[in-house]
Amino acid sequence: MPTYNAPTKDTQFILHEVLNVSGSSVPGYDEMDADFTGAVLEEAGKIASEVLTPLNAVGDTEGCRLENGVVRTPTGFKDAFDQMKDGGWPGIDMPEEFGGQNMPYVLGTAVGEYFSAANQAFTMYQGLTHGAASAILAHGTEAQKATYLPKMVSCDWTGTMNLTEPHCGTDLGLMRTKAEPQSDGSYSITGQKIFISAGEHDMADNIIHLVLAKIPGGPEGIKGVSLFIVPKFLVNEDGSLGQRNGVSCGKIEEKMGIHGNSTCVMNYDGATGFLLGEEHKGMRAMFTMMNEARLGVAMQGLSQAEVAFQNALAYAKDRLQGRDVTGPKNPDGPADPLIVHPDIRRSLMDQKSFAEGARAFMLWGATMIDASHRADDQDAEGLISLLTPVLKGFLTDQGFDMAIKAQQVYGGHGYIEEWGMSQFARDARITQIYEGANGVQALDLVGRKLAQDGGKHVMAFFDLVKGFAKDNAEVDGMAEFLDPLKRGSKDLQAAAMYFMQEGMKNPNNALSGSYDFMHLFGHVCLGLMWAKMAKASLEALASGTGDPQFYETKLATARYYMARQLPMTATHLARIQSGAEPVMALDAANF
Amino acid sequence: MPTYNAPTKDTQFILHEVLNVSGSSVPGYDEMDADFTGAVLEEAGKIASEVLTPLNAVGDTEGCRLENGVVRTPTGFKDAFDQMKDGGWPGIDMPEEFGGQNMPYVLGTAVGEYFSAANQAFTMYQGLTHGAASAILAHGTEAQKATYLPKMVSCDWTGTMNLTEPHCGTDLGLMRTKAEPQSDGSYSITGQKIFISAGEHDMADNIIHLVLAKIPGGPEGIKGVSLFIVPKFLVNEDGSLGQRNGVSCGKIEEKMGIHGNSTCVMNYDGATGFLLGEEHKGMRAMFTMMNEARLGVAMQGLSQAEVAFQNALAYAKDRLQGRDVTGPKNPDGPADPLIVHPDIRRSLMDQKSFAEGARAFMLWGATMIDASHRADDQDAEGLISLLTPVLKGFLTDQGFDMAIKAQQVYGGHGYIEEWGMSQFARDARITQIYEGANGVQALDLVGRKLAQDGGKHVMAFFDLVKGFAKDNAEVDGMAEFLDPLKRGSKDLQAAAMYFMQEGMKNPNNALSGSYDFMHLFGHVCLGLMWAKMAKASLEALASGTGDPQFYETKLATARYYMARQLPMTATHLARIQSGAEPVMALDAANF
Repeated sequence: MPTYNAPTKDTQFILHEVLNVSGSSVPGYDEMDADFTGAVLEEAGKIASEVLTPLNAVGDTEGCRLENGVVRTPTGFKDAFDQMKDGGWPGIDMPEEFGGQNMPYVLGTAVGEYFSAANQAFTMYQGLTHGAASAILAHGTEAQKATYLPKMVSCDWTGTMNLTEPHCGTDLGLMRTKAEPQSDGSYSITGQKIFISAGEHDMADNIIHLVLAKIPGGPEGIKGVSLFIVPKFLVNEDGSLGQRNGVSCGKIEEKMGIHGNSTCVMNYDGATGFLLGEEHKGMRAMFTMMNEARLGVAMQGLSQAEVAFQNALAYAKDRLQGRDVTGPKNPDGPADPLIVHPDIRRSLMDQKSFAEGARAFMLWGATMIDASHRADDQDAEGLISLLTPVLKGFLTDQGFDMAIKAQQVYGGHGYIEEWGMSQFARDARITQIYEGANGVQALDLVGRKLAQDGGKHVMAFFDLVKGFAKDNAEVDGMAEFLDPLKRGSKDLQAAAMYFMQEGMKNPNNALSGSYDFMHLFGHVCLGLMWAKMAKASLEALASGTGDPQFYETKLATARYYMARQLPMTATHLARIQSGAEPVMALDAANF
Repeated sequence: MPTYNAPTKDTQFILHEVLNVSGSSVPGYDEMDADFTGAVLEEAGKIASEVLTPLNAVGDTEGCRLENGVVRTPTGFKDAFDQMKDGGWPGIDMPEEFGGQNMPYVLGTAVGEYFSAANQAFTMYQGLTHGAASAILAHGTEAQKATYLPKMVSCDWTGTMNLTEPHCGTDLGLMRTKAEPQSDGSYSITGQKIFISAGEHDMADNIIHLVLAKIPGGPEGIKGVSLFIVPKFLVNEDGSLGQRNGVSCGKIEEKMGIHGNSTCVMNYDGATGFLLGEEHKGMRAMFTMMNEARLGVAMQGLSQAEVAFQNALAYAKDRLQGRDVTGPKNPDGPADPLIVHPDIRRSLMDQKSFAEGARAFMLWGATMIDASHRADDQDAEGLISLLTPVLKGFLTDQGFDMAIKAQQVYGGHGYIEEWGMSQFARDARITQIYEGANGVQALDLVGRKLAQDGGKHVMAFFDLVKGFAKDNAEVDGMAEFLDPLKRGSKDLQAAAMYFMQEGMKNPNNALSGSYDFMHLFGHVCLGLMWAKMAKASLEALASGTGDPQFYETKLATARYYMARQLPMTATHLARIQSGAEPVMALDAANF
């Protein structure tokens, strides 16, 4: 049975020694000293290991069942959900006025990683609620906030996002769900939505569906889409639950993974809905939820890589098989542990250098969200807008690959469900697909974000890398980290330049390289993170504070990333610079 | 529901226009003209599509069940198995004296791809039988051959390979299964074997287990391992079935995929076994089976990539989502088909260029087996010995990646089991693991095969690439294919050179790069295949024979592979040349 230990020491290192959060001027960050965040992280880690981890396999094996319209979640989920609520975890970064704890988003992200690593399918119930609550917070009327938020912040009620229909996922302009205006100002919602995570279940008193639909007579396509609040039970004026709304779960999908989460077909049959935000501006409101959800999914990618890595590492230390070619390491035993073998190390170092680098990237991104929300920092908002598709696409693609690598360490045992490694891979797989498949992230990055505000944000990123390299050029021991980072960054600039020049002639020259660009960008971001972590480690070693072994290990891992992962940037650039011709040459009929 | 159409036209192109099989002097190849192979391929393709494909999802959903010691295969499997037997497919490349059809191995491989693409879990039953029969053919006494082969060639009896035990997979020297000599010359086999594919089932009258075990008092470790024939039912002198042997299925494993194949824990409780080959030379005999099995697994990797690609392509042409940025391609419809989008094309071209290149590589490898077996060609034997780990490791890693890419084209629908794309990925996943996990293939390649016979075979490979490049240097239109091939081959030589020089100082310098070397080698092989296919296409176009569109498509696909896949060789080389230091830096305790 897999185990999980929250990497609190690593999170603390990133928060305080790399990002220096408590030194930030962002409101609320001054309270985040190491003692405080340490206590929060320890507590979250404990719940993750003790409460959520044991339910992960249960969720996978039992799945959710639809019986007479009621969805039953796996054994133990409801109890665990109550424990999470009792601890106030769902509202950790929500406003106090609605019952939240008002802590920064970066801390919510840090603990979210632990919960998700321990049990991704379970954690989605509260993750989706958080997203829906954020949308109401941003776009709701005062009355709507008062009605829904206190219950959603506590997770007494949960939330969902309803976008996809059978014939449209990415292209929401094609949607058919209708919202007919009623005389009382509400709307009558009719249509079918699919792939609705946590669409129906038995862990909350009410479920607040946020539903995209078209008001008849509105503009064609995506410009005629509005967002509606559709509660499972209508809410009376006094806040009590009223009548059952015309929404029901028609089916639970059989999926490759995340069996513990109920993925529902939702039928809206003249359900009562309430407009959230403005008419026909539904996509704007939905994107409040989507952007947050994309960061949450990026974090899931990291989380599955981390938990899979932890278990692969334990197995590699434990399983005796073969001998170290340079001489036995366990001479009294029948064989040496797997970890002596270079190719097993390669795999483990790939996993380790990814997970730690991704954690830094993720938390760095979360500080930008805080700076944007709490300090109205436009630059931070612009940069995280640019980096969101990179985080989502790169961290989930790599997260899945790392879960596969971790599974591979187990050999045949990895393929057997009993050992749990298959579940990590199967659960991780969805992260590459939902909240915008990764190809759509790449399109968003290259087709929209790169040129946003005149390309200002990507220039800011390049300046940031250059500034870091320049500021540390003379620092002893940094050259071995800065040189590969600069090479990677140069490849990224060359790719951006290629898009600018050749994309003008034919947009397909840019779009054909979009996926490679997303990964090239991701590698440079992790390279930057590793250079920053190397710097913090060199400083700590020089000052003699802390555990020198921890910092030496960081330096060795940083070297690994530079030597073994960053060289990918050259291949991505070569592919990008080959342009649209090889990709688009064939007529569709000739494939 | 997924569909499958055997790519007979492509197989014919490779057999006749690229490999020119009927022009070969290998015995039996003269009969393989295009009409003959075409008829065989068409017939096999028909069975694959009509009989095996519809059972693929059935096998996945139902799985195998163990009930009172009897294993029940999924509905329809037995009937289909009988149809395969009636058609003589299991013995297609087996000797006539045992009831086979004595066709070349290359033709068996070609049709095997179709069967495996249509239903991997099903086809394994006959694949394992083939491997076990080959081992008996190579190492059995005349009496053993006469007793077992006719029934195994027809698949009236099936076969298994029993290597793995709970505490040892790769390191078989640790095995505990014992074989006690009996007074009648037989052995009493006691022990437990796990992960035994097709270990018990209801489709054959008898199951012939080939079991590795140690004869007490023999040499320690791997040198004390012998191979035994252990029939489920002992065979009487007259060939009729006698008493039930002391072997039973203790459990069926729950796996990530290939649910239609029964993966058994096999318990041997004083079962009667008969020595196959010499005492303590079991590994040699087992490797007859293993090498064949590794090629079969390579072919499975290709097969899952092909069937997943076919379905992704169909979906990409059918599903309407979004608009071509360069202008609508389906202006009268609500949206354009997915295939207009550059990033979807990138994915489809990755898949197409892999599947067709891998097919050529696979069939080229199979011709070496024929040359070795039928014409005692030592050079061919040496080269295929070198290339076997490349075929197994590269084709299965890439095959899985391509199945994942194909699944991704479906978006959310890819994650839902109903659409069948998840099964291709889950089934493909085992190919990276069984018959020697791919890390072990890389070790075999770099630690053993590269230096075999003084490095003669890898030099022969380089000469072959150089010779092809030189012979075609002046051929009009070949430069664009030869230049990238030469660059890739140069990277491969540089990597081999690095291993030679630095591996002397420290073997870990070579082993740390073994996995990258395997992939680097694979890309160069596919590059060579694409250059050869380009040449054949240019010739056909020049001579005006055949369908010009087919050849133009080949050229475009070759260009794609050169532009988008071969650049990976540079990254693999960079990683290799970074040596052991980044990989081995950490003490195991500091991970």
